[in-house]
Amino acid sequence: MEENSKKKARKVILTGDRPTGKLHLGHYVGSLQRRVELQNSGEYDEINILIADDQALTDNYDNPKKIRDNIIEVALDYLSVGIDPAKSTICIQSALPALHALSFYYLNLVTTQRLSRNPTVKAEMKQKGYSGENENDNEAGLPAGFFTYPVSQAADITAFKATTVPVGEDQLPMIEQTKEIVRRFNQLYQREVLLEPEILLPKNSSQRRLPGIDGKAKMSKSLGNGIYLSDDEKTVKTKIMSMYTDPSHINITDPGHVEGNTVFTYLDAFSKQEDFAEFLPEYQNLEEMKEHYKRGGLGDVKCKKFLLKVMENMLSPIREERKLWENRISDVYDILYQGTEKAKETTNATLEEVRDAMRINYFKGNEIIGEWDKWVHGSQEG
Amino acid sequence: MEENSKKKARKVILTGDRPTGKLHLGHYVGSLQRRVELQNSGEYDEINILIADDQALTDNYDNPKKIRDNIIEVALDYLSVGIDPAKSTICIQSALPALHALSFYYLNLVTTQRLSRNPTVKAEMKQKGYSGENENDNEAGLPAGFFTYPVSQAADITAFKATTVPVGEDQLPMIEQTKEIVRRFNQLYQREVLLEPEILLPKNSSQRRLPGIDGKAKMSKSLGNGIYLSDDEKTVKTKIMSMYTDPSHINITDPGHVEGNTVFTYLDAFSKQEDFAEFLPEYQNLEEMKEHYKRGGLGDVKCKKFLLKVMENMLSPIREERKLWENRISDVYDILYQGTEKAKETTNATLEEVRDAMRINYFKGNEIIGEWDKWVHGSQEG
Repeated sequence: MEENSKKKARKVILTGDRPTGKLHLGHYVGSLQRRVELQNSGEYDEINILIADDQALTDNYDNPKKIRDNIIEVALDYLSVGIDPAKSTICIQSALPALHALSFYYLNLVTTQRLSRNPTVKAEMKQKGYSGENENDNEAGLPAGFFTYPVSQAADITAFKATTVPVGEDQLPMIEQTKEIVRRFNQLYQREVLLEPEILLPKNSSQRRLPGIDGKAKMSKSLGNGIYLSDDEKTVKTKIMSMYTDPSHINITDPGHVEGNTVFTYLDAFSKQEDFAEFLPEYQNLEEMKEHYKRGGLGDVKCKKFLLKVMENMLSPIREERKLWENRISDVYDILYQGTEKAKETTNATLEEVRDAMRINYFKGNEIIGEWDKWVHGSQEG
Repeated sequence: MEENSKKKARKVILTGDRPTGKLHLGHYVGSLQRRVELQNSGEYDEINILIADDQALTDNYDNPKKIRDNIIEVALDYLSVGIDPAKSTICIQSALPALHALSFYYLNLVTTQRLSRNPTVKAEMKQKGYSGENENDNEAGLPAGFFTYPVSQAADITAFKATTVPVGEDQLPMIEQTKEIVRRFNQLYQREVLLEPEILLPKNSSQRRLPGIDGKAKMSKSLGNGIYLSDDEKTVKTKIMSMYTDPSHINITDPGHVEGNTVFTYLDAFSKQEDFAEFLPEYQNLEEMKEHYKRGGLGDVKCKKFLLKVMENMLSPIREERKLWENRISDVYDILYQGTEKAKETTNATLEEVRDAMRINYFKGNEIIGEWDKWVHGSQEG
């Protein structure tokens, strides 16, 4: 019993990214910053960061080069924002064979009907034209690997025995699906092998979603509206100076809107009290600045220049850190290699327990022979 | 080129069974007998016999004990009919990790629409009440692992680089699905890694399907209408004496029908010319015997007694061989262990090639770093 409660007390994080591109400010605000905080909080026994190439392949299977090229980029992004390989295990999904085996067995515990109802998958299916809602939908059809990826996510989470998954609210259905699989497995095979994970939601709304520089809902590579952690100063300047503001704010003297004004959304997310003292001392804080903009008399260019300083203040140390790691690229390789080896041990241990619970570990201790013997010749005892 | 054509000339068989029960005469006539012939023909470079426990688990996931208990039984059946572990590799599916990984990646190459159209799966879905054709269908829904099992079969076949799959006509859609995956993979990843298998159909109709002793289409455990290779003489006798014949053949003098008469169907499948000289010399051959039955004057009991002798002539050496292996059960374990180890090597080698072709073998020869370097700093050469 004590052993058990001790085990339950372990706090393990699983988080990660699909390596489909370099990471941008949206990732930074939405997850990276938080990860570093959690990593340094000392509250967690284990932090695992999965570079989810297998998951990325479910909708990029025809372009593995894109995924491959971005693995090192994502690792560099991690290291440059302060992910510390001594505290966090960075690992590559496709190199963890236990995840494939667990996905395989979990497929038996989920119905196709249940998968079709997953709201996240439904939304993504619609977006990709896989919904089957009209005849002109994506003719190629829905790849089964994409349809079943919630099962693969359940494999990831449970393989690490993660207790805590820091993701956005939109991922809630995925966590629910994982919990269902955990309960089904433990009940079916009568052993408490798998753990139900808990979602750890973002602390505040600005962590939830950062719009692109064009004001569109989400930064994305295809829209070309993102600011990347690896962008140089010149690129960041160009992007910020072209940022979407308030289209009704034509002359400096015109009253302006701060809601839906990307510059202010970014200032909400990134500016700190001390930035004003340092870069724009005419305002005490963001509230005063907003008031001035709203009543008129504050120009967009001035706002953007301030935002640029705020951003550069944050981005330049990240950029410098990145440069250091780029010059030690074989160390980055080693970090990925070591992290993956460690994760392999962790996840293989879970698979071993899963196989024990399902009792398909036939070659473990001749069990299969002993049982067969008992079955055929009848038990001599009791 | 020569290397390549040499490779193509290799002839490799993959075959196997779901270990859901002991093997019966239907298995013997439908596949085991043929396997032994193929094994001893010397025409094949490699013969792999897969005990497909993972596949059996897709519709028995709630009862792994049933699968586990039958693995040794099926192995004993193999050995007793003449499968020679020196010539054929007997292996256990769940212990081959490459099969899980290949299934995982192949799921990306198949659409859910395509899987829904698979006639074999459709028929089985209907049988199990998963078809969704009416509201009162199996409420629990269709397990995703069952829905995707053709993908897992493609993984099995291709992992062994099988050129030849000896199965019944009903399995043709499965082989087609495998071929599609092979073509898609090789075309997508631009390497001829996987081989398209060919189906090897049964030689004659009596090999196709043996009815149960009740005359029902198929022997099955649930119908209790099978004669098992491991049945003792007394059991075989009871079963044969209770066999379904011709219900209109009431008195011995009545004319009888041989079509649909299970005794004659079995005699078609099992009796040989020399059996008549030995056990029923009043007839030269089966034709003469049938003629007598048809015109009247030949009783069912006499026919059944002859069939029993024919069967016992065949079954008793199998039974003796089985007894020998039962007394060497730890050798059976070793055969399974060694076969599985060998199969692990074969299938891991294929997985390695698959990962190379997909170029997700990141930790092989630092390739990922070299490429990243080239990508970031530009190629210095050509």
